[in-house]
Amino acid sequence: MKALVYLGPGKKALQDHAMPEIAAPTDAIVRITKTTICGTDLHILKGDVPTCEPGRILGHEGVGIIESVGSGVTAFKPGDRVLISCISSCGKCEYCRKQMYSHCTTGGWILGHKIDGTQAEFVRIPHADTSLYPIPEGADEEALVMLSDILPTGFECGVLNGKVAPGSTVAIVGAGPIGLASLLTAQFYAPAEIIMIDLDDNRLDVARRFGATATINSGDGKAAEAVMAMTGGRGVDAAIEAVGIPATFELCEKIIAPGGTVANVGVHGVKVDLHLENLWDRNITITTRLVDTVSTPMLLNVVKSKKLDAAQLITHRFALDDILDAYETFGHAADTHALKVIIAAVQPGGETVGPGQAARDLS
Amino acid sequence: MKALVYLGPGKKALQDHAMPEIAAPTDAIVRITKTTICGTDLHILKGDVPTCEPGRILGHEGVGIIESVGSGVTAFKPGDRVLISCISSCGKCEYCRKQMYSHCTTGGWILGHKIDGTQAEFVRIPHADTSLYPIPEGADEEALVMLSDILPTGFECGVLNGKVAPGSTVAIVGAGPIGLASLLTAQFYAPAEIIMIDLDDNRLDVARRFGATATINSGDGKAAEAVMAMTGGRGVDAAIEAVGIPATFELCEKIIAPGGTVANVGVHGVKVDLHLENLWDRNITITTRLVDTVSTPMLLNVVKSKKLDAAQLITHRFALDDILDAYETFGHAADTHALKVIIAAVQPGGETVGPGQAARDLS
Amino acid sequence: MKALVYLGPGKKALQDHAMPEIAAPTDAIVRITKTTICGTDLHILKGDVPTCEPGRILGHEGVGIIESVGSGVTAFKPGDRVLISCISSCGKCEYCRKQMYSHCTTGGWILGHKIDGTQAEFVRIPHADTSLYPIPEGADEEALVMLSDILPTGFECGVLNGKVAPGSTVAIVGAGPIGLASLLTAQFYAPAEIIMIDLDDNRLDVARRFGATATINSGDGKAAEAVMAMTGGRGVDAAIEAVGIPATFELCEKIIAPGGTVANVGVHGVKVDLHLENLWDRNITITTRLVDTVSTPMLLNVVKSKKLDAAQLITHRFALDDILDAYETFGHAADTHALKVIIAAVQPGGETVGPGQAARDLS
Amino acid sequence: MKALVYLGPGKKALQDHAMPEIAAPTDAIVRITKTTICGTDLHILKGDVPTCEPGRILGHEGVGIIESVGSGVTAFKPGDRVLISCISSCGKCEYCRKQMYSHCTTGGWILGHKIDGTQAEFVRIPHADTSLYPIPEGADEEALVMLSDILPTGFECGVLNGKVAPGSTVAIVGAGPIGLASLLTAQFYAPAEIIMIDLDDNRLDVARRFGATATINSGDGKAAEAVMAMTGGRGVDAAIEAVGIPATFELCEKIIAPGGTVANVGVHGVKVDLHLENLWDRNITITTRLVDTVSTPMLLNVVKSKKLDAAQLITHRFALDDILDAYETFGHAADTHALKVIIAAVQPGGETVGPGQAARDLS
Repeated sequence: MKALVYLGPGKKALQDHAMPEIAAPTDAIVRITKTTICGTDLHILKGDVPTCEPGRILGHEGVGIIESVGSGVTAFKPGDRVLISCISSCGKCEYCRKQMYSHCTTGGWILGHKIDGTQAEFVRIPHADTSLYPIPEGADEEALVMLSDILPTGFECGVLNGKVAPGSTVAIVGAGPIGLASLLTAQFYAPAEIIMIDLDDNRLDVARRFGATATINSGDGKAAEAVMAMTGGRGVDAAIEAVGIPATFELCEKIIAPGGTVANVGVHGVKVDLHLENLWDRNITITTRLVDTVSTPMLLNVVKSKKLDAAQLITHRFALDDILDAYETFGHAADTHALKVIIAAVQPGGETVGPGQAARDLS
Repeated sequence: MKALVYLGPGKKALQDHAMPEIAAPTDAIVRITKTTICGTDLHILKGDVPTCEPGRILGHEGVGIIESVGSGVTAFKPGDRVLISCISSCGKCEYCRKQMYSHCTTGGWILGHKIDGTQAEFVRIPHADTSLYPIPEGADEEALVMLSDILPTGFECGVLNGKVAPGSTVAIVGAGPIGLASLLTAQFYAPAEIIMIDLDDNRLDVARRFGATATINSGDGKAAEAVMAMTGGRGVDAAIEAVGIPATFELCEKIIAPGGTVANVGVHGVKVDLHLENLWDRNITITTRLVDTVSTPMLLNVVKSKKLDAAQLITHRFALDDILDAYETFGHAADTHALKVIIAAVQPGGETVGPGQAARDLS
Repeated sequence: MKALVYLGPGKKALQDHAMPEIAAPTDAIVRITKTTICGTDLHILKGDVPTCEPGRILGHEGVGIIESVGSGVTAFKPGDRVLISCISSCGKCEYCRKQMYSHCTTGGWILGHKIDGTQAEFVRIPHADTSLYPIPEGADEEALVMLSDILPTGFECGVLNGKVAPGSTVAIVGAGPIGLASLLTAQFYAPAEIIMIDLDDNRLDVARRFGATATINSGDGKAAEAVMAMTGGRGVDAAIEAVGIPATFELCEKIIAPGGTVANVGVHGVKVDLHLENLWDRNITITTRLVDTVSTPMLLNVVKSKKLDAAQLITHRFALDDILDAYETFGHAADTHALKVIIAAVQPGGETVGPGQAARDLS
Repeated sequence: MKALVYLGPGKKALQDHAMPEIAAPTDAIVRITKTTICGTDLHILKGDVPTCEPGRILGHEGVGIIESVGSGVTAFKPGDRVLISCISSCGKCEYCRKQMYSHCTTGGWILGHKIDGTQAEFVRIPHADTSLYPIPEGADEEALVMLSDILPTGFECGVLNGKVAPGSTVAIVGAGPIGLASLLTAQFYAPAEIIMIDLDDNRLDVARRFGATATINSGDGKAAEAVMAMTGGRGVDAAIEAVGIPATFELCEKIIAPGGTVANVGVHGVKVDLHLENLWDRNITITTRLVDTVSTPMLLNVVKSKKLDAAQLITHRFALDDILDAYETFGHAADTHALKVIIAAVQPGGETVGPGQAARDLS
């Protein structure tokens, strides 16, 4: 089968690769229909994720069709259409029993990281019963690809952890795909104000279209002052960090109101300065979280009931054969205005989608 | 001044009445601009509320202008435009310190009940600093009358107590003004389904317009079966009782899913049957609540940010001189299709609104 | 093997019975070392539980040693010492993923009810990985039998649902084993007062020894008045119903303070009167719950750290051969002062405990 | 009257000072019977708190007798015995209505900081109705001095914010008076393990006596390794920082388990390093808090019911005339083994306690 393989820092290729096989009774093999690329995949390619070794098939998002299941799988059978969670969860360990699937002792984020991932024609999913979700009849499968990672991440790490509430004031720092996922899902809770902060005016335009009530281009280094002015000097109830660098985290420290919460979503590579000399008496909360995808069933309900249009995050579509182009487009988002790119691996009928065909058929 | 006075069961009159006076340093006198009638006022008139004695000016909702304040009032001064909470709260007692203002040991629901109320040209408000709210510049004052009682009641007793959550399934039994207030505010939490149940098709039409995803006319006695069919036999996560009779409460018992919550909003005059023989092992919660109006600041934010159009609950407008007509209209809602009626007591300029004038000027 | 078999209302026998066998890959067979009798077993014998059919081996509590496991069991192996939860949980279904194991779609309370139970030499445990718990080295196994049902039930249904908190006032109605389990575990939260109410002075003596700060014998029908006097007319913050009849539930309705919670633990056979005409405006919560045993790992920690002496609930010990005597003793608790009786099925060495032997060896 | 006055960095004196007077209708004048010294007072004396200006009477803790009240005070009258909260709260502002009294817009921590404090014969208390608490009949007034600041601080900032729960594992870094207050109040929630970490073996001895299940002297720089060894490599569920320097905060970062909470109690003067490169995916929470004293009524209940022996924090007693000696003793705690020192200002009969007399009478 075809698969996008990481070959060490800066190197990747679309290669022929052996088919995955059932390795444990709780495994399933899924034929991928649609997958996508995540910012984390770019991090791996830069060499920032040493736990991901060369030879690994990348990708931790996607939808597909069950090809085969191990003897211990009871919830799925071949032919079932499924959503793949970016988090594998055994459902049995201490952490899974506390709904902290991200820290599953035999799972967590392993797909496209410690085991082969979804940017391929087929993928092996461990703990299938508790790591896959049935796709409701008539659902828009492309939209559901957004539920593998980006929407639960924006929602759980940003909105739930940030305790976004009706009437409250929220700032989201970073209007990339994850920040926009926080923006979309923050609106489940009817906050009065959502202030979106980024360096890219195009993304701020998208944010306004997606429901931001105000936007700030932080290029002038005065975003904190702007937020304080907008909030009457009070600051925001929730500050969602969706970038992952010290400057954006420290901006959140500056704009958080007494009693508020800084919810970190970004993946950080270095330490940040925590100004406890200012914050020790401000009654604030800071949270970190690797997504648990515990909200996936809820998000499926919300998408099914049309309260959330997940598809609006999709800007480009490619066939699996063109995945290198997809990486090119996604990796140059400032120029291409890419948010999420859909990669079509297998056609509904079962044949692999050929070069150029996806764009023609699906866009 | 003119005032609508309760004269014993079945009797009321628009009378001349002595002006209220500051009785404690924490009192304020408010000149009423707009008030309204509540279902509870009708209960008092039927003689159902023996704690309300003849001679009492009715009404516990309204907006107005501060006329004078006692020496202990620090948050308001004459001329300030204010929203009156239906709940008076001292801010000091055990219950107020726990945000349970409904049980304030020297307040709670006393307006138009144990002390004279708002259906008059002026009203005395005890504990003014903690029982009035400043009206934001440019706000629609008629809409804000809905924040005195009906919206916090629907929200706190129904939506908050019912733990309405994104993606969840909600049933609201009773599509009167309170049930509709629950319907409007339930949408702060993006539930996937809101099923509205009533006997009146007109109100169910209104409910659909206000955001209900399904409606059931319970006239055939088969509402429970209908809800179970709609939810795949599972029942609803939150059942909000907004009527106040045994039949509607027991309907909620029948449709609640395991793990769900029955949130009682209705005012009950007799006991109900609680079928613990069916419910003891269903992991359900039942709540009761007299509104605390603890959510008023939040609701003001939400109205200000245009996330909630409170004015759509208003169907009729009258001058204070025509308040008996207003009672007639509100009391025959099945025929008049009345939801909330606005009674204009004082014109913006300060003169009392004359007969017929309100309808002409304001509707 | 020997087993205590239900033979229809009023009838039971200690019989020879076929050994259980692995029926699904996730099953385990456990050799029972210690088991006990629950009030629910007496209900079954009275014919109150029609879902339990004649021929069923009773019992849903116990500890033992893994005899064999199915191919899908990964957490246990033959020889492991285990605690059996009274609730079987698949870990996969909608309810299990929400930690509501009591409503597991293929589990819940099935042991000694819908499938054969633990009052036998061996038992089959479905969903073994998520329904058994490893016994820590050096633990008192008799004490751990209290963790199969009674302690999680008293804790989850009574204490957690009742939101018992530091400094609060608690009443527990019913000083039987379950009420006493609530009493013991309520003390995890340092309430200021725990008032125990029962008809049996002996049990009230036990309650005082177990930490009750006050006791009331309700034989004179004036328990409500006594509680109100003790609480300055305010009532209690949490009222835990641990009997299961209308009179005791309605007592809880009378003594609950504004803002308080009535946590139902009792198994009810008939409806109760819910006096909403008094309670609609009291801001109270009523909860029901079939134990989820979600707190079992926590309780194991607490027992291990010596913060809870579970063994003090044990009053009598019998061999499996004498289980009919054990039923006799447990069924006449008013005379025998029995709380929980331990039934020893298998000796540490592996031989079945013979008649009379348990009492001699273990008491 | 006599008062301990701050005279600029390093300087203080016991001086004659003008009596305080009622300045607002909501003020009360309290005759101090017992007060104490806080670590914060030492910070002020070092010049670390520039918002406290020379000429200020220090002290924010104490009990006393109401001398006089303003016209707006309704809850207290001259002669009432009262506990003084270190936090003044108006009960009216946005923050007070959310129970965040620490951020009261006209209160918060002002006593002995922005207005004159309690280390004097008399003190003016603003917002008296909501900043004083009646002392229950028969209470140990010395013990209650611990409720002005230290116990609510240890409890709210450490235990509540740290979400200490039954069966959980807690580490407290710093065994000074505040850390010990966290230790005492953590036991309200029956954690399985409480590990106390400090440099001073004497304080660790005290900690063991107060209920710590393990202690670590961090002098060898290996405290993190020791905690990880004690917890099987997992870390602690709650890490309470009760020192206020980077090293101790960063120790908390190292020992916190996935899903755990670092609750900061310490007063920090400089920034700390937050290692988000390690923590971004660990699902942790960090909290800061200036005590709100919202738990004071609860703590009064707990002390009254003998569930907490607050007096054991008291090691030394002085008369107000000897307050410079008291500072000396408290300021050299490593040598004197002082925890909290009681300063007796006025005798029960009303006369000022003379030099040497307190120690004689009260110890």
